[in-house]
Amino acid sequence: MTIEIINTGSELLLGRVLNTHQQWLCRRLADEGHDVVRQLAVPDDSASIEGAVRESLGRADWVITTGGLGPTSDDLTRERVANLLGRTLVPDPAVAAQVRNFFESRGRPVPARTFVETLIPTGAQVLPNRHGTAPGLALKVSPNPFRAAGQTSWLVLLPGPPRELQPMFRDEVLPLLHRESPPGHGCQTRTLRTSGLGESLLEEALAGPLAPLVTKGLELGFCAKIGEVEVRFAGRGASAPELLAEAETITRSVIGDCIFGSGDDLLEAVVVRELTKARRTLVLAESCTGGFLSHRVTNVPGASAVLLAGFVTYANLVKETVLGVDSAVLVSQGAVSEPVARQMAEGARRLTGADYALSVTGVAGPGGGSEAKPVGTAFIGLAGPEGTTVSRQLNPFDRETFKFATSQQALELLRRRLLNLSQP
Amino acid sequence: MTIEIINTGSELLLGRVLNTHQQWLCRRLADEGHDVVRQLAVPDDSASIEGAVRESLGRADWVITTGGLGPTSDDLTRERVANLLGRTLVPDPAVAAQVRNFFESRGRPVPARTFVETLIPTGAQVLPNRHGTAPGLALKVSPNPFRAAGQTSWLVLLPGPPRELQPMFRDEVLPLLHRESPPGHGCQTRTLRTSGLGESLLEEALAGPLAPLVTKGLELGFCAKIGEVEVRFAGRGASAPELLAEAETITRSVIGDCIFGSGDDLLEAVVVRELTKARRTLVLAESCTGGFLSHRVTNVPGASAVLLAGFVTYANLVKETVLGVDSAVLVSQGAVSEPVARQMAEGARRLTGADYALSVTGVAGPGGGSEAKPVGTAFIGLAGPEGTTVSRQLNPFDRETFKFATSQQALELLRRRLLNLSQP
Repeated sequence: MTIEIINTGSELLLGRVLNTHQQWLCRRLADEGHDVVRQLAVPDDSASIEGAVRESLGRADWVITTGGLGPTSDDLTRERVANLLGRTLVPDPAVAAQVRNFFESRGRPVPARTFVETLIPTGAQVLPNRHGTAPGLALKVSPNPFRAAGQTSWLVLLPGPPRELQPMFRDEVLPLLHRESPPGHGCQTRTLRTSGLGESLLEEALAGPLAPLVTKGLELGFCAKIGEVEVRFAGRGASAPELLAEAETITRSVIGDCIFGSGDDLLEAVVVRELTKARRTLVLAESCTGGFLSHRVTNVPGASAVLLAGFVTYANLVKETVLGVDSAVLVSQGAVSEPVARQMAEGARRLTGADYALSVTGVAGPGGGSEAKPVGTAFIGLAGPEGTTVSRQLNPFDRETFKFATSQQALELLRRRLLNLSQP
Repeated sequence: MTIEIINTGSELLLGRVLNTHQQWLCRRLADEGHDVVRQLAVPDDSASIEGAVRESLGRADWVITTGGLGPTSDDLTRERVANLLGRTLVPDPAVAAQVRNFFESRGRPVPARTFVETLIPTGAQVLPNRHGTAPGLALKVSPNPFRAAGQTSWLVLLPGPPRELQPMFRDEVLPLLHRESPPGHGCQTRTLRTSGLGESLLEEALAGPLAPLVTKGLELGFCAKIGEVEVRFAGRGASAPELLAEAETITRSVIGDCIFGSGDDLLEAVVVRELTKARRTLVLAESCTGGFLSHRVTNVPGASAVLLAGFVTYANLVKETVLGVDSAVLVSQGAVSEPVARQMAEGARRLTGADYALSVTGVAGPGGGSEAKPVGTAFIGLAGPEGTTVSRQLNPFDRETFKFATSQQALELLRRRLLNLSQP
């Protein structure tokens, strides 16, 4: 069973918007054992949209489009699909009532242009939109005029806004997909997330031990990201679950401490989970990461059980008055220095009574570097009941990548400390 | 002149990675006046990669691929392209020296597998990689066997890691593109970024005044995002610059105050710029946004000139001890309340002496809501020399979207305050 995704929107091809639908949809489909074999983005013009849908219907069992169902003049998908498949657009009274209700419950007048959202191609199933006005649509294309032997395909049209698309996909499309195309022995995958070894060294370490499984059909993939490398196993057929489990066992025995999680695990979630388990609290003191470390930790639901506070002490005076950093040290060593990182962590811990404090001070750039402390330099402090350590790092990246890499190293420093505590 | 982009990587189709290359490349190409007409993502298997490259070469003047040039066994692009075009892979001594130097300068042994990165298809131009080991490649496909009349196409292969791809594209690919295919009167675009009116109401407000320009060929697009709507103008031909300028003038006269910027302007950058211009300082006091507001402000280069500090007062005790919020009010009104937002802003301003203080307290969810204050409720405080105001908002989204929407409203509150000051 094959699936293709078509993302419509001139803003995608003009680079105005990041296409988050691709990852989100592909992840959900892969988790359910379905193969997405192609993703395509095309601009909002009639020929591109009709051409892309026709091509995909000529290959795939399921074609999912995103975008182009809204009320404005550049929303063309509904009309183009009706045209391509020779279906008439008919106003649907139930959809019209829902659209009216959406605006009336918010005390707003119904814009005249939303009328087009109530038009449904004949034979299409309406996928209700609980978070907006434009419904999704599902069409069984049977026989499919674009495929040899007129096989059946399904064509699903989803709205563009993520908060409308995502619940609609979960509540309406996945059940339909399971009813019409139950997943068989598709591709199964397992991903381990590691920190501490580069991509090449990881493959060198694992190639030998995993070779016997590769000959049995294990597919091995590596994906290097900032501050981590993902190791991905894939397998097909009935023996896949066993193959993946064996691969994981071997990998854990070879590079155990480097593995911080699997699947969707985020390092910040692992750290929050370990702190929660150990009933320990955390405080953060940031300079160059500017709140990004706090942001990552507070993205984790339940973070309030462990995180007491974050201090973004951007100005030196605030480092002194709030965290108690010694002004003489700030002058003699500079704000980006080992003793300042140490004093920031210890000061934040003292101020809040937290068990652990992480601090970061560095040169995010683009300006501010020197020969001794070039752009990208960061000092990361960790204070806890076992004492304080400071790690020096060099992350010579753009500003946002610098923030990510540095926060990743800070979280990894704490993860390793908590790991040592839990090991005998 | 048409361009197609092919992103290779099974991790893309499995939804393991967000495809940021598409937006990044499309944006740069659009800025230079080039049209990307199609973007495609395919998995790392030989047939998919060869098939996609063959198809795109059959249509486009330029085909740009990303990924698959690294040292691991799932990196297939170089080999598949050589196979498709009938070119031999030959080791390049200069590339080999550069790869050796990359590792030796870092004091690391050269992994044996990096050898494949030194193989170059005959006739290909090497695009040096200043931030990694695998070079990019540019191939003139002339005559192009996949196109009618054997027209010429260019095929450019770029490495997957963004910090390798981006400088290579800027330093090597753009100059090549300009040399070989100077931009003509392609599509020109202009984007205005607005806050305060929904997508339908914006189009209703602008449709009449812009109608005469639309008949002259102006293309009008709207893109609704969280907390903002982009209005996009596009035009073709020699008259495009004048058409876009007229459209902007009319739009500014109709919805002036709603426009916070144009092009790539971010609301946080606009706020930092306005504060810098007015020589005013800022402090942030966050609860539910958890550092994200600080993160956005500190993403702006030069933010240190205006931002003194950010306080992520997650625990109530820290709201009291650090910001001086009244414990009786915390008990009687709850942490998510108008007076607490007010006291957080005023306390942060007092503590640091900043001119302006923004505060946010709310229920990010998924837990913690009540009937009176459901998940998504946020109080946003703004304290300044003109006094303190508090705005109540409802952002019933997932946790990260909540943070974005709420921080957007906070920044917009400050922007409007600064706008009122600067207007007579």
